[in-house]
Amino acid sequence: MSEQYLVDRDIEFLLYEFLDTEALLQRPRYREHSREVFDATLGTAKTIAEKYFANHYTKGDACEPTFDGENVTLVEETHKAWNAFAEAGFLAAHYDFDEGGMQLPEVILRSAMAYINAANVGSAAYPFLTLGAANLVHSFASEELKNRYLPPMMDGRYAGTMALTEPDQGSALADIRTTATPAEDGSYRLRGQKMFISGGDQPITENIVHLVLARIKDAPPGVKGISLFLVPKFIPASDVSEATRNDVQLAGLLHKMGYRNTTSTVLSFGENGGAIGYLIGEPHKGLSYMFQMMNEARIGVGTGAAVLGYRGYRHALQYAKERPQGRLPSNRDPQSKQVPIIQHADVRRMLLMQKSYVEGGLALCLYASSLFEDAHSAESESERQQAAELLDLLTPIVKSWPSRYCLKANDLAIQVLGGSGYIREYPLEQLYRDNRLNPIHEGTEGIQAMDLLGRKVPAKGLAGYKILAGEIGKTIAACSGDAELLVLAQCLGDSLTRLNGTTENLLGKLATDADLGLANAALYLDAFGRVVVSWIWLRQALIASQKLSTGSALSDEEENFYRGKLQAARFYIQWELPEIGPQLALLDTGNRVPFDMQRDWF
Amino acid sequence: MSEQYLVDRDIEFLLYEFLDTEALLQRPRYREHSREVFDATLGTAKTIAEKYFANHYTKGDACEPTFDGENVTLVEETHKAWNAFAEAGFLAAHYDFDEGGMQLPEVILRSAMAYINAANVGSAAYPFLTLGAANLVHSFASEELKNRYLPPMMDGRYAGTMALTEPDQGSALADIRTTATPAEDGSYRLRGQKMFISGGDQPITENIVHLVLARIKDAPPGVKGISLFLVPKFIPASDVSEATRNDVQLAGLLHKMGYRNTTSTVLSFGENGGAIGYLIGEPHKGLSYMFQMMNEARIGVGTGAAVLGYRGYRHALQYAKERPQGRLPSNRDPQSKQVPIIQHADVRRMLLMQKSYVEGGLALCLYASSLFEDAHSAESESERQQAAELLDLLTPIVKSWPSRYCLKANDLAIQVLGGSGYIREYPLEQLYRDNRLNPIHEGTEGIQAMDLLGRKVPAKGLAGYKILAGEIGKTIAACSGDAELLVLAQCLGDSLTRLNGTTENLLGKLATDADLGLANAALYLDAFGRVVVSWIWLRQALIASQKLSTGSALSDEEENFYRGKLQAARFYIQWELPEIGPQLALLDTGNRVPFDMQRDWF
Repeated sequence: MSEQYLVDRDIEFLLYEFLDTEALLQRPRYREHSREVFDATLGTAKTIAEKYFANHYTKGDACEPTFDGENVTLVEETHKAWNAFAEAGFLAAHYDFDEGGMQLPEVILRSAMAYINAANVGSAAYPFLTLGAANLVHSFASEELKNRYLPPMMDGRYAGTMALTEPDQGSALADIRTTATPAEDGSYRLRGQKMFISGGDQPITENIVHLVLARIKDAPPGVKGISLFLVPKFIPASDVSEATRNDVQLAGLLHKMGYRNTTSTVLSFGENGGAIGYLIGEPHKGLSYMFQMMNEARIGVGTGAAVLGYRGYRHALQYAKERPQGRLPSNRDPQSKQVPIIQHADVRRMLLMQKSYVEGGLALCLYASSLFEDAHSAESESERQQAAELLDLLTPIVKSWPSRYCLKANDLAIQVLGGSGYIREYPLEQLYRDNRLNPIHEGTEGIQAMDLLGRKVPAKGLAGYKILAGEIGKTIAACSGDAELLVLAQCLGDSLTRLNGTTENLLGKLATDADLGLANAALYLDAFGRVVVSWIWLRQALIASQKLSTGSALSDEEENFYRGKLQAARFYIQWELPEIGPQLALLDTGNRVPFDMQRDWF
Repeated sequence: MSEQYLVDRDIEFLLYEFLDTEALLQRPRYREHSREVFDATLGTAKTIAEKYFANHYTKGDACEPTFDGENVTLVEETHKAWNAFAEAGFLAAHYDFDEGGMQLPEVILRSAMAYINAANVGSAAYPFLTLGAANLVHSFASEELKNRYLPPMMDGRYAGTMALTEPDQGSALADIRTTATPAEDGSYRLRGQKMFISGGDQPITENIVHLVLARIKDAPPGVKGISLFLVPKFIPASDVSEATRNDVQLAGLLHKMGYRNTTSTVLSFGENGGAIGYLIGEPHKGLSYMFQMMNEARIGVGTGAAVLGYRGYRHALQYAKERPQGRLPSNRDPQSKQVPIIQHADVRRMLLMQKSYVEGGLALCLYASSLFEDAHSAESESERQQAAELLDLLTPIVKSWPSRYCLKANDLAIQVLGGSGYIREYPLEQLYRDNRLNPIHEGTEGIQAMDLLGRKVPAKGLAGYKILAGEIGKTIAACSGDAELLVLAQCLGDSLTRLNGTTENLLGKLATDADLGLANAALYLDAFGRVVVSWIWLRQALIASQKLSTGSALSDEEENFYRGKLQAARFYIQWELPEIGPQLALLDTGNRVPFDMQRDWF
């Protein structure tokens, strides 16, 4: 059985029908491009994904990174994958021509990354993190630092990491204890320990650029006293007479359930006098800078989760078409031929549920990337601002919804295969193990929930929320001429009305009692996600319905494609959206059962 | 952090408060026993679990079974665990004194197994399967076969397996192709291949008794032509001049995501002329015999799933009490002390959800074991029959509900720990991997759903269903004097009324269109399970409420214990039960979206 990682037709649909990516060609930054350039870029990504990443997906899991006290070893193919990615120019692709980049839109770069992630998420993490780290240096570092560190991060000589978490504070960034002491030459000396740092050490690149959150002596307490530092593994020869090892030590590797070919590290800074670090931007503003990388990473995590789910779905689908087993309940003749399991209604249900999750999740994430693009390159200031506000609002959903539901898609894919899904002779169990990381890193689901309800929704007088509600309203209005879509649109409209009421209600509670008001935020996040993804599906259904009704002759393949999108939209809106009913009821009544549960009652 | 596998107080509550296990002492079979005997039995199981099973839970996962083409190797501790279990007499514990057993009730044996499973489910599978296989021999084999094979299965010299699945038929037992040809001596020669056979080979016991489904030449097609055979790995010396290898070969081991210390095998029967097998019972009735073992195994799978969830919950709970991180949303002082994460409302929600799943699941499974006991030892024929009918109805729920929700509990436990939950330095990721098997083996969720709606509910004029509804009604009535429980009881009553309506509706559809009528059976299974577990929780809440209101002074510890049970019941009935609303609505309207989805639309 040949593996399908991502189906080109789906990406094409998302970029050019669901999103109007070709319209970007009208913007000054992209006038020199064409649809052909975009497609060729994706073609290159696909080739690299299949040739250099897919080949060691299983091997990198079975032979996970090792550390002998001196050196880290990865399976050899990881080096080649990194090199192929870098040599194709993807580490610099989104930068301007005059910076040495290809001036590609965000949504094209992220679609390219989707191919890479689908093929091998463990090896894709190295370029993924490097892209984010380089963007951070690009946005906030001094010209001098940029000149020294950006070029080698853009051509693949250096990799990057984000070093936030410490053993004693986990997600609570306010409690970071790594210190930075000014040195005479204007640099700093860092001391402290960081944990769960992905790619924190590896033998692939000649240097690693750690972007480290630390506290300068006498900084204000809490998040307002955190600064951002660039701490290289080696001080490059260009800076000193010859490249010297910085005082950053790998204390050990952590051993993950999945995502194994990405090293997860404990790093010690400054055990021998202090690691040399360079301040990025102004003191004490580090967290606000880091949020740029975190927000990018959150969209990236969502996309990664979606494509892991997507790959599992395609595998289960193909298996279900090929594997004969059993007969329909109405067939009592045991001598009749067994049917392919896709003919069993429950298998179809599991496949359709997966389809609604993974194609819905991928659409959501690429939509987020298009908002990111609009926030940077849309023509008017107000368009840019609207896009930024909507993206801010949606980021917790984009991070958490695919992480939860595309993991569930992997779970369903295993179930379609049964015993075969559970064994390592098939790829599904690895996809499931890999995907389990996504609800954790870059902010757990609980953190996304607090962020959505506590910050993103109320921000600027519900600015983002109002934009979203307006956009949903437009889609609903566009369904008015289509009797069948109208039914789905009404479900969505009713749900939005209910969500509006609950939101108002919760914001009122929040104002008087933050602890109680946020207590059930996780339910709100889930209900909100269901409304958003229903909208994403209704938009896709609208396109499908228009294509099917144009009267122009579609090929059978195209007709099937659009009918599938319509059916997935029906499924999501009829099967998944109604669950917000009980959720919003619990929120509206302010259910206190978990809140009131006492420590000693457990 | 010390591990708690099962908390004795919970088992004590379930056996002696939730179930009236002491009442068994009035039955003739148990008159020579006492509560002390039961407790000592559980104490022994706990000691063996902690001393011989828990010690290699991680090691048996990291060093999974290997096969060099000749021999299978397991970590050495597995042998000692088997021996300790056998030497304590547990393989024979439930048989009568005059058969060499301890004449122990089913619910005590299953509680004992719960301790063993919680400590190391991978090593527990060998005794678990042997118990079931021996029961099958005991129930249906000839005296001669019993004399030859039961004693060594009861004392631990032989292990047992169940060999149903074949590579080409998976769950479709009607299509079994292994053949059995009569030989002149009255035995049979078996030829065929079996797959996913747990414990199909291992180096622990001197012999393995395979219970194999096969088809005698010219047997009727389908399930009515399947016979059951006892096929030993070695023909014992007592049968022939010296023990000889039977023609059963290990074709290979399968490599599972979890449950790794249990070998999962592909077995070839009869590649060198034919494996010697002995018919059990009558020809062509093999599947009905095998259902005894499958039904026992289904309760066992549910219990195993529950205790894996339970262990993860206890781990996450202890971690949440000890791990300081962050502050409450209302606390804006970054210099204040961090709080243990159990103080975060969302962590409490995740813990309470786990508690409701794992304690609810364990209660459900031990209740099923008590029904099994009643079906065998209750005084009157009508009591025995009622228990059997109710157990038949509930078996698909007992198998599938804990398999789904106690796996979800493991998922939540990982989430409580965050990054630490995802790494092998903590036990949660292994529990999660192990537990993922449970929704698959002994009948997937889809199969349980078809069994429930297609067979168990309509059986004998809804006999089991009516008994269940009657029992639920009794519990609801018992809540009438308790204002707070009354609210919960009304929720359950309303849900049962809705379920009754949907059931009637679906059975009507089934009668006219089996394919469509069963299409959404998985939804029905889930809704049914929610009603059943709400009832299980209401029963527990009733006990807790009575204890709390007696006025007699409870210790703080006891008061907390009962308050926790009450709160978990509130949680389950208020948070989990209402989801049947949208589920039953889809069933009532006969939603056809997955059913109508076409193969080519995917």
